[in-house]
Amino acid sequence: MTQTWLIIGILSGILSVGVALYLYRWVMRQDAGSERAREVAGWIRDGAASYLKRLYTALTLVAVVLGFIIGIVFSFDLTQLGSGNVNINPTNGIIMAGAFVFGALCSAIAGYMGMGVAVQANVRSAVGVQDNLNRGFRVAFFAGAVLGLAMVGLAVIGMSVIFLFTKNAEVVLGFSFGASALALLAKAGGGIYTKTADIAADLVGKVEVGIPEDDPRNPAVVADNVGDNVGDVAGMGADIFDSYVASTVAAMLLGAAMAGTDTLKYTVFPLILCTLGIFASLIGIQFVRVGKNGKPGAALNFGTIFTCVIFAVMVIALVLIGGYDLSILWSTLIGLTTGVVIGNTTEYFTSDEFKPVRETARVSGSGAAITIINGFSYGLLSIFPSIVGIVIATLVSFYVSEASGVISGVYGIGISAVGMLAVSGMIVSADAYGPIVDNARGIAEMAGMEHEVIERADVLDSAGNTAKAITKGFSISAAALTVLALFAAYAEVIEARGLSLEISLRNPLVTAGVLLGAMTPPIFSALTMLSVTHNAFDMIEEIRRQFREDPGILAGTSLPDYKQCVSLAAQGALSSLVIPAFLAVGLPLLVGFILGPEALGGFLGGAIFTGVIFALLMSNAGGLWDNAKKYIETGQFGGVGSEAHKAGVVGDTVGDPFKDTAGPSLNTLITVMSLVSSLFAPVIAAFHIF
Amino acid sequence: MTQTWLIIGILSGILSVGVALYLYRWVMRQDAGSERAREVAGWIRDGAASYLKRLYTALTLVAVVLGFIIGIVFSFDLTQLGSGNVNINPTNGIIMAGAFVFGALCSAIAGYMGMGVAVQANVRSAVGVQDNLNRGFRVAFFAGAVLGLAMVGLAVIGMSVIFLFTKNAEVVLGFSFGASALALLAKAGGGIYTKTADIAADLVGKVEVGIPEDDPRNPAVVADNVGDNVGDVAGMGADIFDSYVASTVAAMLLGAAMAGTDTLKYTVFPLILCTLGIFASLIGIQFVRVGKNGKPGAALNFGTIFTCVIFAVMVIALVLIGGYDLSILWSTLIGLTTGVVIGNTTEYFTSDEFKPVRETARVSGSGAAITIINGFSYGLLSIFPSIVGIVIATLVSFYVSEASGVISGVYGIGISAVGMLAVSGMIVSADAYGPIVDNARGIAEMAGMEHEVIERADVLDSAGNTAKAITKGFSISAAALTVLALFAAYAEVIEARGLSLEISLRNPLVTAGVLLGAMTPPIFSALTMLSVTHNAFDMIEEIRRQFREDPGILAGTSLPDYKQCVSLAAQGALSSLVIPAFLAVGLPLLVGFILGPEALGGFLGGAIFTGVIFALLMSNAGGLWDNAKKYIETGQFGGVGSEAHKAGVVGDTVGDPFKDTAGPSLNTLITVMSLVSSLFAPVIAAFHIF
Repeated sequence: MTQTWLIIGILSGILSVGVALYLYRWVMRQDAGSERAREVAGWIRDGAASYLKRLYTALTLVAVVLGFIIGIVFSFDLTQLGSGNVNINPTNGIIMAGAFVFGALCSAIAGYMGMGVAVQANVRSAVGVQDNLNRGFRVAFFAGAVLGLAMVGLAVIGMSVIFLFTKNAEVVLGFSFGASALALLAKAGGGIYTKTADIAADLVGKVEVGIPEDDPRNPAVVADNVGDNVGDVAGMGADIFDSYVASTVAAMLLGAAMAGTDTLKYTVFPLILCTLGIFASLIGIQFVRVGKNGKPGAALNFGTIFTCVIFAVMVIALVLIGGYDLSILWSTLIGLTTGVVIGNTTEYFTSDEFKPVRETARVSGSGAAITIINGFSYGLLSIFPSIVGIVIATLVSFYVSEASGVISGVYGIGISAVGMLAVSGMIVSADAYGPIVDNARGIAEMAGMEHEVIERADVLDSAGNTAKAITKGFSISAAALTVLALFAAYAEVIEARGLSLEISLRNPLVTAGVLLGAMTPPIFSALTMLSVTHNAFDMIEEIRRQFREDPGILAGTSLPDYKQCVSLAAQGALSSLVIPAFLAVGLPLLVGFILGPEALGGFLGGAIFTGVIFALLMSNAGGLWDNAKKYIETGQFGGVGSEAHKAGVVGDTVGDPFKDTAGPSLNTLITVMSLVSSLFAPVIAAFHIF
Repeated sequence: MTQTWLIIGILSGILSVGVALYLYRWVMRQDAGSERAREVAGWIRDGAASYLKRLYTALTLVAVVLGFIIGIVFSFDLTQLGSGNVNINPTNGIIMAGAFVFGALCSAIAGYMGMGVAVQANVRSAVGVQDNLNRGFRVAFFAGAVLGLAMVGLAVIGMSVIFLFTKNAEVVLGFSFGASALALLAKAGGGIYTKTADIAADLVGKVEVGIPEDDPRNPAVVADNVGDNVGDVAGMGADIFDSYVASTVAAMLLGAAMAGTDTLKYTVFPLILCTLGIFASLIGIQFVRVGKNGKPGAALNFGTIFTCVIFAVMVIALVLIGGYDLSILWSTLIGLTTGVVIGNTTEYFTSDEFKPVRETARVSGSGAAITIINGFSYGLLSIFPSIVGIVIATLVSFYVSEASGVISGVYGIGISAVGMLAVSGMIVSADAYGPIVDNARGIAEMAGMEHEVIERADVLDSAGNTAKAITKGFSISAAALTVLALFAAYAEVIEARGLSLEISLRNPLVTAGVLLGAMTPPIFSALTMLSVTHNAFDMIEEIRRQFREDPGILAGTSLPDYKQCVSLAAQGALSSLVIPAFLAVGLPLLVGFILGPEALGGFLGGAIFTGVIFALLMSNAGGLWDNAKKYIETGQFGGVGSEAHKAGVVGDTVGDPFKDTAGPSLNTLITVMSLVSSLFAPVIAAFHIF
């Protein structure tokens, strides 16, 4: 039966990738518009390709080096360490290294497909909007679905194949680490890239020479639009890909750690949930439609909720028919519900329909400082509903499961995380839609389309922003539950080596670990944000140089050197990743090998707690400032050009690296730290100084 | 012998208070200057008195209510709870309530004395500066010493008397809770008050009508100057008072929990350290001198270091002669050294001699958003040295003590916190100097003194800022070690009731507790900062009303209604404290009674970790922005009036509530939460739902 489910999983994955490829071809068949529009889109496409080439070259290097290290380490029989006997089993090493590289590869392919379609869909969506809203919407959404479906499909294929052949959840951990390591670099690198270009383009373009957003005379305009793709499409996809895989692996490990005859059944259950999630997403995507002048935001939300409902029905059927313990159903549903609820409460803090955004817009009349203080404070308050939601989901899923007497409490937490993420196919589709329509708007502007078309593109764009706010809340909560499950999995992996692991806050080594872990997310945030301002200054110099050396650029008679800016942003972003990458992979190992496995447990705990808090703060404050500025631009409190608007722009610019660089990378950071700890837990258990 | 030490402690406390009174009279005998200067100082004095009256009325109410509750609760014999027998022992209740009220009273008296002298010393320091720098410096510093010496004196008297009569460290805990509860309200209330007035005065004064800082035509100018006193003198004094007492109590509790014949000896040792610290401070204060044109900053630093050296020598002698275990010496010295080192590394992030401030000033040319991003990022990075210092101090003091076989490791942590805080007499003197010279500068301006005098007052003022940055780093690290010791003490108090307490991160109740605890400091910060902007808007309306209704004010022919602004700020600040106070006192009890003592342990842990991080971030980022603005004002990057300066002003205004409202209250918040938990630990151990 387990065997059958694994094969069904692989087939559902293949189906999902197949549909993704079909949608990809469908998007490509759409009209790519006028010569001018094609040309503009071509610049963005080339810029994206050049960034991806650099990124994937760097990532290949990282994957090969890490894969090699993993291969060597896992070739040793660790149980013999210290006994004087050195047994070497290269097969183990090769399998683990292979799983790692496979994970990195799947993540890379999904990201590449998503980017590939996004840079083709943007212009086609813009052209579609020329006809009507619905046509533009469909192109963008189906292009988003390419990423969503490719991602979940590849993930489920990868995990199922590995488990089918090895029957060992720890090998799937290697796959997950590969996917996450890649995601971190793609996400943080993309985040630095996109905001470097954005800030530089704005500061010189809008402020110094006074040309509008997306003006083709701005040398950084292509880099800016490429940034939307690399940061929001490839980066975000990689981010949810990594939570998706990590939550499944964590639940599988926790399932495998339960004693009893049904161990295998419960180990595979998380994969079955993913499979059902794929089917639910495939159905849900069909129902995302918008009338000729309908509301795209409502359509996206309806699609998400509808997918959740289908998924819930499938899970109920599965549990009842499959003879699983009923508690597993509650854990799944509490996870799913919490995800939806947190996503929607996040909206309270970032939507212009509620007090936080309106109040921040109102006080902006008194200057940028008040805008910042207010937005930052509301960002801090926005932590509250998410944390309470996570606490409730954790406690309920734990105690319901524990009370069942069949499954363990921590396994219940793991399942609730999987329940939240199982519908990722749909979530990512709705999320990737955002940057595509953002780009479409940019292309419409640059290609000189009519005012009416740009207005319609704006409607699509603003729906994207709402969808993005909700999915961000969703993805942070999901990441939080995932890392809590990973944390439990880490402990199980250590104990599977016969060590008892007390991660007690009364042990000063654990306290030391927690303090060091707790400081990692803020420092990671600081480093990535400082990279943004630093790189933006380099690019500002470059833009000024181009304007100075060729006056024809501003006159509109000669074309700026877009490539130089793209290349500068890419180079800056990638070289800024060295220290953050060390923090993610090196620091946990250092803490583990020096202070021991209990301190490392504390370290993970500390990183999770502040990681979640800073991720929520930065994402929500950033979203709030963005929308406060937009609210003022609708004519409130003086509208465009007023003092309030100037303050709003400052808030928005501060919020950019908050919400697009630092904030969303933190999820991936804590996932990578948890995975690297669990993966190397057997080595650390065998060898540590304290 | 113990008895003797306690009596010596009481005598040293009386000596300290006596010297404080002598210095108070000395300050009062100094020349209070011209009619005009006296008049201006009178407004500030009256404003401060009116705020204090309101504050102390509110505090009396809080103290009576909490004291009553404590009296009732501790009248029950808790060991009998649940057994059906209800034994009542009102003496216990009266003693505990008495200790609580006594603690609140001592803290109030120290704060009142400090405020009382500060509002007299400001004008006298301004007048002194007319003569020469040294005279102005001496008045301000000795006035600061009134607060410093009164504070440590009263604290040591209170703790020694209580322990002398009860021989029970848990009763001293009641005293400490009284001091801290009062400190929290004084600190947070003062912080809200001072920034409400500051922001409102600046926004209407400087921005709307274009009159300079400290202009007597501004209706909020008195409130602003009162704010410096209530926030920085009374608030800061209360803040260090509370860490000082709490660290001593924590170490005493941990000493009492050690088995062995020397228990009493080690229980009293923290009090002896305080006594030696008083002597060291009394000597050190004599050596703070500055030549006629010398450097006041260097003089303050020299005094601090010199005091630390004297203290260290005394402790070495005590340990060697008194036959204490040598490990206790290392713990004391590591605490003391860490305090000094952390204080100085903090300077790297906030002094204009180093990269963070200069870099932030440089990028300000590109607009306020970049100023904010950069300053915030450096603020995040500034966490690093302090956390590493705290980790090293914790681990070294723990393991050195544990290895001794004589004292327990957690006791060592407690002693290192006491070692850091024992020289508080001197630290507070240097710190309270700052707001006094700040006020002196304001009075010099308002009273129309010569340009040269104002320049000299500026020199004094800037030394105050440096001293403040260092003592802030010091007080946050000290609070961190203190709460770590309190955390250990909490566990000991619970275990003294025969319960075993495992605060394991693998227990989901503990995880839930940590998450809830971790969100408390950010939410507390948000609430206090939102109160500032909210109240500032009310005051802006009032200032505008006064200008509108009496045009004579701006013309300089009629006096504005200063009292109305003072009263508005006071009322706003006090009514904003309700929810923050609930978070501090109510939430830990709620978590304890509902989720149980282990979850409460997690809650405290979570609050400590994020509390320290946010306190460091906010204090240091605020200090950095302040100094970046000042650095630009020295003529760098365009100087006053440039784009860089405008951006610097925005940074400074954002930093104000960061560093003066939210940041420094967080120390006290986590101390209060730890104390209330330890105090009610016996009740929670006897009764909780989960």
